[in-house]
Amino acid sequence: MTKPLHPNLNVNALFLGPKSENAVFFREMMDYAINEHMYWRSGFHPGDSTLVTSVDRYEHNYRETLYRTEGILNQLSAKLKNTSIPFFSPRYLGHINSDTLMVSNLAYVMAMMYNPNNCSYEASPTTTELELESGLDLCRMFGYNPHQSWGHITSGGTVANYEGLWVARNLKTLPFAISQHPKAKDLVIHKSTKQLKNMPTAEILDLISTLQERGIFEEVRDMTCRGTGTRPEILGKLLVPQSKHYSWMKAADIFGIGQENIIPLPVNENYQTDVAQMRKITLELIEQGESILALIAVVGTTEVGAIDRIDEVIALRQECEERYGESFYIHVDAAYAGYACAMLLNEQGEFIEYDELANCHRSIGIMPENISWPKPEVYKSFKALKEVDSITVDPHKVGFIQYAAGAICMKDKRILDLISSRAAYVFEEKNDNTTPVVNNRGILGSSIMEGSKAGATAAALWAAHRLLPLNINGYGKVIAAGIVTAQRLIDKLENMSPIEVGKHRFEVHIMPSPDFHMINFTFKEMGNENLESHNTLNKRLYELCSYSTGRAYTNDFLTSSTILDYKEYGDTPRHYAERCGFSRSEWDKIRRIFVLRAAVMTYCLRDEEHFEEFWNQLQTIFVKKLNQLVDEEEKKARLKSSLDAPLLGQ
Amino acid sequence: MTKPLHPNLNVNALFLGPKSENAVFFREMMDYAINEHMYWRSGFHPGDSTLVTSVDRYEHNYRETLYRTEGILNQLSAKLKNTSIPFFSPRYLGHINSDTLMVSNLAYVMAMMYNPNNCSYEASPTTTELELESGLDLCRMFGYNPHQSWGHITSGGTVANYEGLWVARNLKTLPFAISQHPKAKDLVIHKSTKQLKNMPTAEILDLISTLQERGIFEEVRDMTCRGTGTRPEILGKLLVPQSKHYSWMKAADIFGIGQENIIPLPVNENYQTDVAQMRKITLELIEQGESILALIAVVGTTEVGAIDRIDEVIALRQECEERYGESFYIHVDAAYAGYACAMLLNEQGEFIEYDELANCHRSIGIMPENISWPKPEVYKSFKALKEVDSITVDPHKVGFIQYAAGAICMKDKRILDLISSRAAYVFEEKNDNTTPVVNNRGILGSSIMEGSKAGATAAALWAAHRLLPLNINGYGKVIAAGIVTAQRLIDKLENMSPIEVGKHRFEVHIMPSPDFHMINFTFKEMGNENLESHNTLNKRLYELCSYSTGRAYTNDFLTSSTILDYKEYGDTPRHYAERCGFSRSEWDKIRRIFVLRAAVMTYCLRDEEHFEEFWNQLQTIFVKKLNQLVDEEEKKARLKSSLDAPLLGQ
Repeated sequence: MTKPLHPNLNVNALFLGPKSENAVFFREMMDYAINEHMYWRSGFHPGDSTLVTSVDRYEHNYRETLYRTEGILNQLSAKLKNTSIPFFSPRYLGHINSDTLMVSNLAYVMAMMYNPNNCSYEASPTTTELELESGLDLCRMFGYNPHQSWGHITSGGTVANYEGLWVARNLKTLPFAISQHPKAKDLVIHKSTKQLKNMPTAEILDLISTLQERGIFEEVRDMTCRGTGTRPEILGKLLVPQSKHYSWMKAADIFGIGQENIIPLPVNENYQTDVAQMRKITLELIEQGESILALIAVVGTTEVGAIDRIDEVIALRQECEERYGESFYIHVDAAYAGYACAMLLNEQGEFIEYDELANCHRSIGIMPENISWPKPEVYKSFKALKEVDSITVDPHKVGFIQYAAGAICMKDKRILDLISSRAAYVFEEKNDNTTPVVNNRGILGSSIMEGSKAGATAAALWAAHRLLPLNINGYGKVIAAGIVTAQRLIDKLENMSPIEVGKHRFEVHIMPSPDFHMINFTFKEMGNENLESHNTLNKRLYELCSYSTGRAYTNDFLTSSTILDYKEYGDTPRHYAERCGFSRSEWDKIRRIFVLRAAVMTYCLRDEEHFEEFWNQLQTIFVKKLNQLVDEEEKKARLKSSLDAPLLGQ
Repeated sequence: MTKPLHPNLNVNALFLGPKSENAVFFREMMDYAINEHMYWRSGFHPGDSTLVTSVDRYEHNYRETLYRTEGILNQLSAKLKNTSIPFFSPRYLGHINSDTLMVSNLAYVMAMMYNPNNCSYEASPTTTELELESGLDLCRMFGYNPHQSWGHITSGGTVANYEGLWVARNLKTLPFAISQHPKAKDLVIHKSTKQLKNMPTAEILDLISTLQERGIFEEVRDMTCRGTGTRPEILGKLLVPQSKHYSWMKAADIFGIGQENIIPLPVNENYQTDVAQMRKITLELIEQGESILALIAVVGTTEVGAIDRIDEVIALRQECEERYGESFYIHVDAAYAGYACAMLLNEQGEFIEYDELANCHRSIGIMPENISWPKPEVYKSFKALKEVDSITVDPHKVGFIQYAAGAICMKDKRILDLISSRAAYVFEEKNDNTTPVVNNRGILGSSIMEGSKAGATAAALWAAHRLLPLNINGYGKVIAAGIVTAQRLIDKLENMSPIEVGKHRFEVHIMPSPDFHMINFTFKEMGNENLESHNTLNKRLYELCSYSTGRAYTNDFLTSSTILDYKEYGDTPRHYAERCGFSRSEWDKIRRIFVLRAAVMTYCLRDEEHFEEFWNQLQTIFVKKLNQLVDEEEKKARLKSSLDAPLLGQ
């Protein structure tokens, strides 16, 4: 069978399905995976005598042990069925979760039985190669040169962010180490102390090569913070969007940088890093002679899905280099939205021009006439990713892989020498330059943060990437399904008539124009001017739509929530509060707003007819939940014998 | 059916088996796991209309997509079968690997389909509880008070070590922060600067409680290195066994401590930390007024399985506290041997007195008459674990779980407040004190290093702990099988007659009295006095017994190797070199010895008859490998037309 070059994938055939529609196929393949492994075992030196005989298996305690095993699995299954969250269903629109790919689940199980450990090649000859191949898939998607870059799997986006900061931090102290080494200092003699503080990444990486040629790289490396410990005054400031995902707070702690050295970059009305303020803060730091450890930008915040202007970050760096000869490291946390880059690539893996994109999406049928994605500035952000130094992306988010699978891509693999526990020459070894470039057949564990790690994760990711190419025709198709659904849902919510419950009327307010497929919204009681009551109402609604008020399984609709407060976002949420009808002074009093949060990842509702049916159902559910809420409150109020308006007034 | 309190487990029924002997049971249970999940899906709002209809499934590209999925799984299976390592077989005695528990493999798959994320309780109501329960199982095994301690799963032992160092580091800087806060400094006013540098862990933890009562804990915490960044001069020295597992080198880099602040503790002839030298170094540091960040001890080194004298470490700490009022944090890396603690606990989980242990092991049939474990000092080490501050232990090593599953236990959970991203009061919440103590139902991700993580791992570990209690009757049985086999193998190797190959004669030398079940050995050509040749011989033997000379599947015997060199172990390996017959001057010239390394974990050879058969086979294999090696060398030598003795002379 010759396969067509460009697969014509049917999205429905990728997942087990909301009613286990692909049960037969999944079971068959699972049998296949297990049988293949079992025959591998029994075919290994078949002449060896049987160590577990059929006589052994008739011993009483043999059967007892199997029954106990079965009993424990019964218990586990009962627990899982009782309190798991039905991520697989379109009724779940909450965290960044949905159904996961059959091929990845199957590949994981298949590889798990061989139990490879990707810490070292010796314990995982197969899966180490799959990990490096999958890493390069991601590098290529972002536009990195696969011969110079590298990517690998981490246990999650948090560890990927750590690794990005790790290389950035060690890089930052190298110029100072060079300036103190007698046989190296000539390399930076022309630099002022101020310039040493903010040398461009590429320039420092070239110095690594020079130091290696001189045979003193390892000596100099021992003089970086790796050897001496960190000194915050050299490391300088870590610029992070104001929302400060807690992984960055943890990172500043762990890497000895100090949380007080985080400089928050304010966000604009759309929760993207404010470009003008970012520029102002950065230039001021440079002019003051301060070190900038790194600038972190986010492609898809976990709270609202905002996508920072990466092109503007790159432009700012260029401006700094041209004006001052100074620069900074850029790490992008694209844990959430990184895979969406696939929607912008044609089948050759090239960026599609923006003007052609909508047509392209329509012609292959992944976007209907009235919907398009992304906005021009989001497109520019994705296109600029190839210029940044490192990128976090989570296969267990929009890669539709089961947990745990994060990843990091680094633009220039020479940077690994700064953190590697091995002699630096290993990466110099010749390889045959075929794809995949397996340039690291030794101990992966000595070039990454973690040690032992499941090779099965690499198998799962590799299989997903083989089935779904990282372009419009592969991942693009699946991701588009969520985006289309999100946009339809926004349209419906925006045009929904108020819901009446007794004397109360509720309308929905959506946060404006999301960058990706996350929708934040609240139900507002009309006439209520009290923001605290509004928050209480939505918090209670969230409880009614989550595990917290009982078995998720019996619930009609499940979502998640977040709180946008002054501490994290300054006055940005005020704009939304005002749109909902709360006064500025009300905001100034409360300074936090509780919102419902729905990452729309389901592939099941991309068809308009299915969506309409879902929407009708959802409206009924909203009415039911609001009725339940009003009933509760009225009951409470009767108990207190004080029927104050508004509802939930405190 | 009422289950007997103490299970009578049959070890053969725990694993899939070397010839997939338990294939039928495994397949049935896998079907069960999958079916349970599938019916969970189809039973979720069964009235919802079908989104993937049978008509859809007959579309051409639907079938194409399934065929492609199948094709990728075919490819993956071929790759796995071609280059995986047969860890499951008794013919594999190398890295710390063996077959893994059926119940864990099954539990993983069962839970994986629900895709829980233990980062937050909301995304994993079931598996977060299983993780905390499993963590407490481990705490109990080590003798920690389950009401005060906590344990959780990490992606591996490396991350567990990081977390231990993280809390130790932040703890170290708290007294200084207290001394600088106007409303707190009275708490340490009686301490000299020297004493502030080395306050006892328990005393600092009590201060946390006091600060919390005063309502200033978070302010003071911001003044620790978490807020300000690290300053190596306050952190002081990290005392690590001389072998310095590379995770500690990475840790000193990552945590901003600096590798130059690692002080290596020399090892004795048995590769355990030398007690006298440890004492001398520690007391000198304290007397010099130096800070001791932490002392790391190892229970089961990855290179030889050496077990440090934890009781002596505790005694030293006590001495320091009594003599100087100063102390230090103790973290034990028991990644490898930690689970062996189960061999010392009776069915009530109490430590069995040493005098009774051998009888106890014999009476339940896990040790034959002529074999006993552990040595008295190893017993004392395990018994002292309850006094140390934190312990790394790897379920994916001697817990017989598939990758990736590490774990850390902390003696006093108040220490978490130093690294937590949440408000400190959360841990104060009342809980009902039932077992398991689920005291942390919020966001696990904000109290640990990682973020998103697979809940399926927790299911796998929980299931293993339920099937195999952490005592002599559960894990003890399985671990004993490896120990018994290791001791039998040592006995055979020690008494083996030299193997003759042409004019060459080879004898085996074992490194003396291992603490656990790892054997290090070399083949020595009799008459050879050249250590470099000896190393080359054994390196080549390793290549002939590993993936590196072809498909592991077709190999007769597989092992691993390591190099013991001066840089890591000082002159310690000289003793072994001398035992092998190399002169002191020869050692002084080469200062490294290449050894074969076999972690004996297999459960299949605990029966004497099976072992004898295996040993006969193994002797034949050794002869074959040595013949192959001699042939190769003679061929090479003929080509060079110079038949110099000894073999492999360079």
